Amino acid sequence: MASGVVTITTDFGHKGPFVGVMKGVILARFRDAKIVDLTHEIPVHWPAEAGFWLQRSYYYFSPGTVHVAVVDPGVGTERDIIVAEADRHVFLAPDNGLLAPLLDAVADAAVHRVDAAGLDSLSLPPASATFHGRDIFAPLAAELASGRLAPSDLGPRADDWTPGWLDEPESANGRLVGVVVTVDNFGNLITNIGEEYLESFERPLVLAGGHEFELRETYGRSKPGEYLALVNSFGVLEIARAESSAAAGLGLDRGAPVRIMEAG
Amino acid sequence: MASGVVTITTDFGHKGPFVGVMKGVILARFRDAKIVDLTHEIPVHWPAEAGFWLQRSYYYFSPGTVHVAVVDPGVGTERDIIVAEADRHVFLAPDNGLLAPLLDAVADAAVHRVDAAGLDSLSLPPASATFHGRDIFAPLAAELASGRLAPSDLGPRADDWTPGWLDEPESANGRLVGVVVTVDNFGNLITNIGEEYLESFERPLVLAGGHEFELRETYGRSKPGEYLALVNSFGVLEIARAESSAAAGLGLDRGAPVRIMEAG
Amino acid sequence: MASGVVTITTDFGHKGPFVGVMKGVILARFRDAKIVDLTHEIPVHWPAEAGFWLQRSYYYFSPGTVHVAVVDPGVGTERDIIVAEADRHVFLAPDNGLLAPLLDAVADAAVHRVDAAGLDSLSLPPASATFHGRDIFAPLAAELASGRLAPSDLGPRADDWTPGWLDEPESANGRLVGVVVTVDNFGNLITNIGEEYLESFERPLVLAGGHEFELRETYGRSKPGEYLALVNSFGVLEIARAESSAAAGLGLDRGAPVRIMEAG
Repeated sequence: MASGVVTITTDFGHKGPFVGVMKGVILARFRDAKIVDLTHEIPVHWPAEAGFWLQRSYYYFSPGTVHVAVVDPGVGTERDIIVAEADRHVFLAPDNGLLAPLLDAVADAAVHRVDAAGLDSLSLPPASATFHGRDIFAPLAAELASGRLAPSDLGPRADDWTPGWLDEPESANGRLVGVVVTVDNFGNLITNIGEEYLESFERPLVLAGGHEFELRETYGRSKPGEYLALVNSFGVLEIARAESSAAAGLGLDRGAPVRIMEAG
Repeated sequence: MASGVVTITTDFGHKGPFVGVMKGVILARFRDAKIVDLTHEIPVHWPAEAGFWLQRSYYYFSPGTVHVAVVDPGVGTERDIIVAEADRHVFLAPDNGLLAPLLDAVADAAVHRVDAAGLDSLSLPPASATFHGRDIFAPLAAELASGRLAPSDLGPRADDWTPGWLDEPESANGRLVGVVVTVDNFGNLITNIGEEYLESFERPLVLAGGHEFELRETYGRSKPGEYLALVNSFGVLEIARAESSAAAGLGLDRGAPVRIMEAG
Repeated sequence: MASGVVTITTDFGHKGPFVGVMKGVILARFRDAKIVDLTHEIPVHWPAEAGFWLQRSYYYFSPGTVHVAVVDPGVGTERDIIVAEADRHVFLAPDNGLLAPLLDAVADAAVHRVDAAGLDSLSLPPASATFHGRDIFAPLAAELASGRLAPSDLGPRADDWTPGWLDEPESANGRLVGVVVTVDNFGNLITNIGEEYLESFERPLVLAGGHEFELRETYGRSKPGEYLALVNSFGVLEIARAESSAAAGLGLDRGAPVRIMEAG
């Protein structure tokens, strides 16, 4: 059932050989791996965005894909590593809340906490204190992706895990309040407000940074420079500006609150 | 005749999972695809540079390669998608002028306009309004690269397409006028003036930003800091500065006019 | 013995198709190559960092991997190309000091100087004056990685090569002086001081930018904002700041001197 595909998500950026050596380690153990970069531009030490994107991206890959995410401010401390089997995909990450959005969303996730006995089966060289992406996550990903190891081989079943970094959107006084999770290359402000939250409004009006935005279907239907809100291709509310950057135009960034109310 | 290689060119940058999920979709349909990033740093919403580079890069890949380019400000509107077979390569892009430089340059290009019947054969899930790269271009690229579909399966033959964004260089009063298309990582100013235009000058002198530049063969023959013009490795005129950035030194960028005249 | 894996290290960045066409050329000659980007964000025209990372990264890849590095300010001049077999890996680079750190560190490296006869066997089209990465290095890498050519086929054995750009750390008055080679995505200041230099100190104290740093084992054991020095996962001294950027906090960058002395 392993597809042989491995995705990697990190906050390493593209300077230095950090992602490259992870791939070297994976290929050295599993020559036929197909490795795909999900993104390496997660904001440094912010697992929330990695988890947000993983939850909304994994199902575009073949079942049996192994998704390894290393945004790991606690590397070298006592934080655990968890491996989850969910919706026929495998997820591997530090237990720091990164996987919580996914594990909360998917029913029947089987989570295992990697322990020393699980690691022993890989005969790894001693791990460095600061780069478990290369020394632990990459070899584990290779063994899982090749099908030689199953998540249950790596440690005992876990029933809880570190909670996520972002609260779900909240309702108060007829308004729903969410937050901008990330800004894409086009300057679109991407929120944590899933489309299911919009269904409770008859004519939703979106508010952020002191401005109001109407819901549209796509960018191309607006005039250049016009602001709009839309449900984007990952199923969450997004504030955009036609042929321009909403983030730059509004001066908003990650963390900005976004409200939805019934139009007057 | 399909090589199994797919190149991807976008303006998505490297933030977020946008390119990654396109690769996921391609691999889910065609596990043996070899996917190569041409570049994802096309200036946002500027198909001209994507077309410029595609025209000058494709022939370094094996015949039978599928080149998919998604710089698509009109996504979700009525713009068409075209697929072209040209010089034994396959090209897939929105019909927004992106492919025009290539189609104008290559004789015997067979262009097809993707229609609903062509898409039906792929049994795609409903496409989002804003990310056809993932929902339409990626699955099409996979089917074309695997050889399961041919361009002619996707829609009727088209005899015209949206014209390109950049005019060819023009002659006036013995001067040739072109434009800077892009600036590379070294600060070299890369123009749309092909080397064939230089042949009509006995001793060409290059002018840009109020400066004059002599034609040289390569950077390494100039002193550090010296400006020069040269025909670069893609066959177009480039203004460079030895061991330094011409763009920074001259304060010039994309769009700057570049003139050629006969030396006095 | 060839693993079929090729790593590429350049200063090309991610704008334009420069890395992409190198991969196109490699795949056109060797369809089964597994190509891994080590990094393309080497500072422009600074082979020192490329050599630094190659020396400390190659052994994470399978034996038989071909590592091609193109940081090549002298392209188009008379500089040579060298190919080295060392520790069961193959390295290919301009002879400009890039490979010196590796060749100095590894015993029994067999270095060959690529000559015209060696290149003739590849029947290359004429090389451009400015992009040997695509026109010479990529085809050579493909032939070496496929096992069709051996380093010794490419030219005569060489006993010397251009020396490296960075001096080894030096001792004076009981102090050891090294230098910051690069700054990673987290703002960690990575030096050329290998851990073996620290062994001669009983209680090493690290000095840089007018500050003193204690040696720790990992980031996670410090309080947020605290500075520390550590031996990083590549075996060299690094100055870090817990959950923050040491480079930004200290105003230090590549080239800054770093001293080690005995704690008082």
